[in-house]
Amino acid sequence: MAHYSRISQIVIDAPPESHDAETAFWSGAIGRDLPVFQRFPDFSGTKLTPDGLGLLVQRLGDGAARVHLDIHATDVEAEVARLEALGARRVRPSGPWWIMQDPAGLLFCVVPDDDLDDTNAQRWE
Amino acid sequence: MAHYSRISQIVIDAPPESHDAETAFWSGAIGRDLPVFQRFPDFSGTKLTPDGLGLLVQRLGDGAARVHLDIHATDVEAEVARLEALGARRVRPSGPWWIMQDPAGLLFCVVPDDDLDDTNAQRWE
Repeated sequence: MAHYSRISQIVIDAPPESHDAETAFWSGAIGRDLPVFQRFPDFSGTKLTPDGLGLLVQRLGDGAARVHLDIHATDVEAEVARLEALGARRVRPSGPWWIMQDPAGLLFCVVPDDDLDDTNAQRWE
Repeated sequence: MAHYSRISQIVIDAPPESHDAETAFWSGAIGRDLPVFQRFPDFSGTKLTPDGLGLLVQRLGDGAARVHLDIHATDVEAEVARLEALGARRVRPSGPWWIMQDPAGLLFCVVPDDDLDDTNAQRWE
């Protein structure tokens, strides 16, 4: 069965000590509020483009600051398998999404999203 | 005088040993070619969204893989000063653009771009 995916989120991972300054900085940089997501209170963010590509700031429990990408997909398991065939590897599941690593070792996530179709995402047969 | 800016590029920085695998992987992940920019042959990329937000892969001379963001601006000096006032600091100029560091220490670039206006960017008075 076909599924859809796309790069949907730029995520700025901020350690606890710099999280608030980081959120304030990126909010000011783009000139928009980055409200906290009630369902995922470690994340705050907004859409950057009309088709919904977003900027998130994530409060890390620990670890170094970094930027990572979220790929959204209508079928996470099919997308993870497709990306494995392209050279990525599974790191661990995290709730309904998968944390993966690309060929250079960069982490990214594959996240379920039912709002993707031919108008805003890539279709995979 | 007013200027415009926006987050315009997601840049995946790849060390020489993983550059080709990284470019092939992200090209496959989004289902698009990432052609080399003739003017900047260390960069290859494409637009991700209709309003032009792009994905680039940069071949690093050395250093670790990472993801960074490029902010494009119609007036680089005015934008750098604005971002400094928000808590970023200048690291070094690189040709016509500035490498800066955000409050968590993440690097990002400010890059000149004459194609920004009220339809696709934020206006700063």
